[in-house]
Amino acid sequence: MMSWEDNVRKVVPYTAGEQPRGTGVIKLNTNESPYPPAPGVAAKIAALDAEQMRLYPAFPEKTELAAALADYYGIGTDELFIGVGSDDVLCQAFVTFFNSDKPILFPDITYSFYDVWADLYRIPYKRQPLDENFLIRKEDYIPRESGMENGGIVFPNPNAPTGVLMSVSEIEEIVAANRDVVVIVDEAYIDFGGTSCLPLIHKYDNLLVVQTFSKSRAMAGMRIGYAMGNPRLIKYLNDVKYSVNSYTMNYTALQLGVESVKDTAYFNECCEKIVRTRETAEKELTRLGFTFPKSYGNFIFAAHGSMPAKEIFEKLKENDIYVRYWNKERIDNHLRITIGTDEQMQALYRALENIL
Amino acid sequence: MMSWEDNVRKVVPYTAGEQPRGTGVIKLNTNESPYPPAPGVAAKIAALDAEQMRLYPAFPEKTELAAALADYYGIGTDELFIGVGSDDVLCQAFVTFFNSDKPILFPDITYSFYDVWADLYRIPYKRQPLDENFLIRKEDYIPRESGMENGGIVFPNPNAPTGVLMSVSEIEEIVAANRDVVVIVDEAYIDFGGTSCLPLIHKYDNLLVVQTFSKSRAMAGMRIGYAMGNPRLIKYLNDVKYSVNSYTMNYTALQLGVESVKDTAYFNECCEKIVRTRETAEKELTRLGFTFPKSYGNFIFAAHGSMPAKEIFEKLKENDIYVRYWNKERIDNHLRITIGTDEQMQALYRALENIL
Repeated sequence: MMSWEDNVRKVVPYTAGEQPRGTGVIKLNTNESPYPPAPGVAAKIAALDAEQMRLYPAFPEKTELAAALADYYGIGTDELFIGVGSDDVLCQAFVTFFNSDKPILFPDITYSFYDVWADLYRIPYKRQPLDENFLIRKEDYIPRESGMENGGIVFPNPNAPTGVLMSVSEIEEIVAANRDVVVIVDEAYIDFGGTSCLPLIHKYDNLLVVQTFSKSRAMAGMRIGYAMGNPRLIKYLNDVKYSVNSYTMNYTALQLGVESVKDTAYFNECCEKIVRTRETAEKELTRLGFTFPKSYGNFIFAAHGSMPAKEIFEKLKENDIYVRYWNKERIDNHLRITIGTDEQMQALYRALENIL
Repeated sequence: MMSWEDNVRKVVPYTAGEQPRGTGVIKLNTNESPYPPAPGVAAKIAALDAEQMRLYPAFPEKTELAAALADYYGIGTDELFIGVGSDDVLCQAFVTFFNSDKPILFPDITYSFYDVWADLYRIPYKRQPLDENFLIRKEDYIPRESGMENGGIVFPNPNAPTGVLMSVSEIEEIVAANRDVVVIVDEAYIDFGGTSCLPLIHKYDNLLVVQTFSKSRAMAGMRIGYAMGNPRLIKYLNDVKYSVNSYTMNYTALQLGVESVKDTAYFNECCEKIVRTRETAEKELTRLGFTFPKSYGNFIFAAHGSMPAKEIFEKLKENDIYVRYWNKERIDNHLRITIGTDEQMQALYRALENIL
């Protein structure tokens, strides 16, 4: 007897970090910004008009938000795709561009949504191992060097959860060596001291650069992400998007998002503060006996010399300090610690002193 | 020479209705509500907190919005899935439940997103023709009568763009005759006089009922839709959803949506006003020489006795009145006219008098 359950697409979903809601909690587990969005966002709330909500929202590419982003990056609005956080953008890009029989490539230690999307859409993939220092081995992504053909490439830069940055010249080598497939560079964490490979989109039509409002723009709650690439890539992405849902970005996200983009001074100030706090964190964590690769993200991926990561993770949680821990091969002795405010980090160091 | 374009998923996207933005325009083309959202929505805007936006939003099933919807419908929150408009919900349901080699079935004249999703995800499908009065032929969906096996069924009730309602007992026959596949009933327009088949979800574990905030709740701009079904269906849907994007519903949608659900009196009042205006529209359009099936939606699907629909459509547009026209087989002499306010409809009748 057939059952409807026989035709269900059964998947193992991605597990997001815990979302404790409580005033006493220090939340250093999902790489949110410790600072509020640009002041213009709060100011704009009062100008939101409920009456407008009865209408379908504007198409994102025709909004002030698109114009502001295009202006900020010095690109055309036809080089920009806007979605519901970079997860939506990346997922649509997988569906749009990764349709080869050859495996797509991504690092073995990386954003753990890549294999979830590949499994969901039955895209073959191969994980290329990071080296022992958690560096991406560039040659693994260059077919003539690795001897390995591929159906596409995706990696974060800086990589997650390691924070390790790849240089633009290395990225260019990868993109140039893979002109027959799309290379997606996921720059969710690029604003914390890294250099974006965005200028390469004008040289390589197979490069898609993805960024987000969830980290450096402190708007994770509003779900805004975007991709930048040549107009043909963007058109294909929009065709798929408009085959899924005509209207993904709601009125409030479009209205409030633009206020963040307009305030470059505040944006730079917040990014710089986070970088400075990270520099202090490097010293403090070293003092406390942690080791970690140099991070260019708003987090540090650290292992302790004597105490297992899982134990530290659990003890911090008992102290209402949440960091991220994965019980996964190769990284099960590491913690990913989001850079919070200086005050939050001081509380973390104090807690670690007690625990260790 | 291979190109990255060889591996692009090339699709023909759905074309949404035009979105003219101008104060002079009478917009009767995308079935939006002519009334604003519940007053509580406007009131809640002032309480939105920009500081909260730095955090990822809550998981929808754990929000006040889910609790309010579950309470309103007398179901459990585990029988409810919330997404970015019913398009998002339906699309995820296609991916989750329609994985058979047998074709899914839907009417030939229906919501034109169904074949777009099927094409996108390479789901085989067969369009079952409506009869000459635009009625769904129930027997076409009952395998032992049609001799036609299927991999799933989806149809709107009332159907779009016809407005024709199917009785709950007929729906029950279809659901009962297809226990081996999932039957999706898309109730986007059910609140304008139709009877929901929702109670059947407790009798049939293969029934998924989908509704939206975009029509009767006047919140198209906020992108909120939901599906109701037994907890196993909902779990599978959530597994796929959490394999696509951990956070689809932003903070503001979750905060504002709940205010609509709380205000049953206002909701009923708006629905009743639209039904009354539709009743007047039936008389006026008949007087003007139109024919149409009895509609249970917030629109009327009408053909004129002498003037071609395309011509009326274009002339109305010259008068800044937008209705919907499809240049498609079988329906290319029909207009879908959204029910607006009484004032907007009076302007429509006057314009039609001049045109005809």
